[in-house]
Amino acid sequence: MPNSTERRLSRRRFVEGTMAAAGALAASAAMPEKRAAAAPAEKLKPGSVVLFQGDSITDAGRDRKNGQPNNWTALGRGYACLAAGGLLADHAEAQLKIYNRGVSGNKVPDLAGRWQEDALALEPDVLSILIGVNDIWHKLNGRYDGTVEDYQTGYRELLEKTLAALPGVRIIVCEPFVLRCGAVSDAWFPEFDQRRAAARKVADELSLTLVPLQTMFDEAVDAAPPDYWAADGVHPTLAGHALMAKTWRSVIGI
Amino acid sequence: MPNSTERRLSRRRFVEGTMAAAGALAASAAMPEKRAAAAPAEKLKPGSVVLFQGDSITDAGRDRKNGQPNNWTALGRGYACLAAGGLLADHAEAQLKIYNRGVSGNKVPDLAGRWQEDALALEPDVLSILIGVNDIWHKLNGRYDGTVEDYQTGYRELLEKTLAALPGVRIIVCEPFVLRCGAVSDAWFPEFDQRRAAARKVADELSLTLVPLQTMFDEAVDAAPPDYWAADGVHPTLAGHALMAKTWRSVIGI
Repeated sequence: MPNSTERRLSRRRFVEGTMAAAGALAASAAMPEKRAAAAPAEKLKPGSVVLFQGDSITDAGRDRKNGQPNNWTALGRGYACLAAGGLLADHAEAQLKIYNRGVSGNKVPDLAGRWQEDALALEPDVLSILIGVNDIWHKLNGRYDGTVEDYQTGYRELLEKTLAALPGVRIIVCEPFVLRCGAVSDAWFPEFDQRRAAARKVADELSLTLVPLQTMFDEAVDAAPPDYWAADGVHPTLAGHALMAKTWRSVIGI
Repeated sequence: MPNSTERRLSRRRFVEGTMAAAGALAASAAMPEKRAAAAPAEKLKPGSVVLFQGDSITDAGRDRKNGQPNNWTALGRGYACLAAGGLLADHAEAQLKIYNRGVSGNKVPDLAGRWQEDALALEPDVLSILIGVNDIWHKLNGRYDGTVEDYQTGYRELLEKTLAALPGVRIIVCEPFVLRCGAVSDAWFPEFDQRRAAARKVADELSLTLVPLQTMFDEAVDAAPPDYWAADGVHPTLAGHALMAKTWRSVIGI
């Protein structure tokens, strides 16, 4: 686990970066009495489509037979549903359409295989993606052989294809994260950090918004142990999902 | 439906009352660009137990075989789960235990019948109750004959019994509410308003915190139609539950 000095350095780099609002918010998870003002809310145009894409963390037990927007069972039991609820309550005039199309077990190539139907066809105005943990987990399990470079190249191709097909889309790259407990052993490192860096690099190169979820959880463990946030190290608890949803909204400003 | 003058009067009375923070928040649902500062967060003592009690709006499809605290399936798909998520994320150090024991179809006498096991035995520090819509709905359906006075008397007895058994408990009375759509016809009035007044009276007489949910929804319909918040007029959508959770937290200040 990172020691307190490493965490302080991590926090300093983070707050000095472009996402100070998110930093203040993540810090407020550890110190709820020091709440920071959220970023000013962005106006969403009427009828905007918001799409959450990813793996099991996004899927979160959603009813995949229910493709309707704004519906609790269709949105699952995770950050996507929690963020959607907040957006629907706070932007009621906008008559948003919010979808979840995360699928458990997915890696970048799985997203690519279903991208036309499950992403482009929905014509999202805001597209949030959280992908990467299975790309390493399935490799550690011997079920996949994709390298860090495969992840970075495949992810970048997917995003470039999306930007070409939907020129007005705002893409949100959610940083892959793990907590140091449960299924997450030392065998995950340093490769997991390399994959996180790859996701950040792709977001940076394409000028996309990054939601720094690993930084958020690295600071959250100052307030409660890792399994409070994700019992198996990978899939967040309600507490973890709620913190993700709050940070997601704060970073994006909607 | 209340006309705009009535709504303005309602809003004025509300904001002039003791819950100005909630009023500003409910108004912000209609006007998201005018966000108000939330009430300062109250410190929760370590290990505090929070219990949500009520009918189907609280139950919200929870897994009744799962009695665990802080668990998504045990907390259901409603405001209780959404409020719990926020509390768990923002008060991680407090190691809260948050339970939902709402049961669909319940009226005040049903709560009374299971109160020892489902409320007192859990020894809550914060006990939130939303009850009343079935007390009138089942009467309109011919399945119950309890009067407004029965509701008020029974509710007050239940609360007095609770305060006697748990002297340190903070009880939150959530105002019963309906939206003017779906199953909610003119036949519900004026009796529904009398029952709302009864809940407010009981809370006032016992100096309990009231969460003014009807006022909140009366203002929210300025931003989106009633069925956006509760398709059948009684059971909130995800948007409605999210607005309830936000108001609940703001009024209570945790």
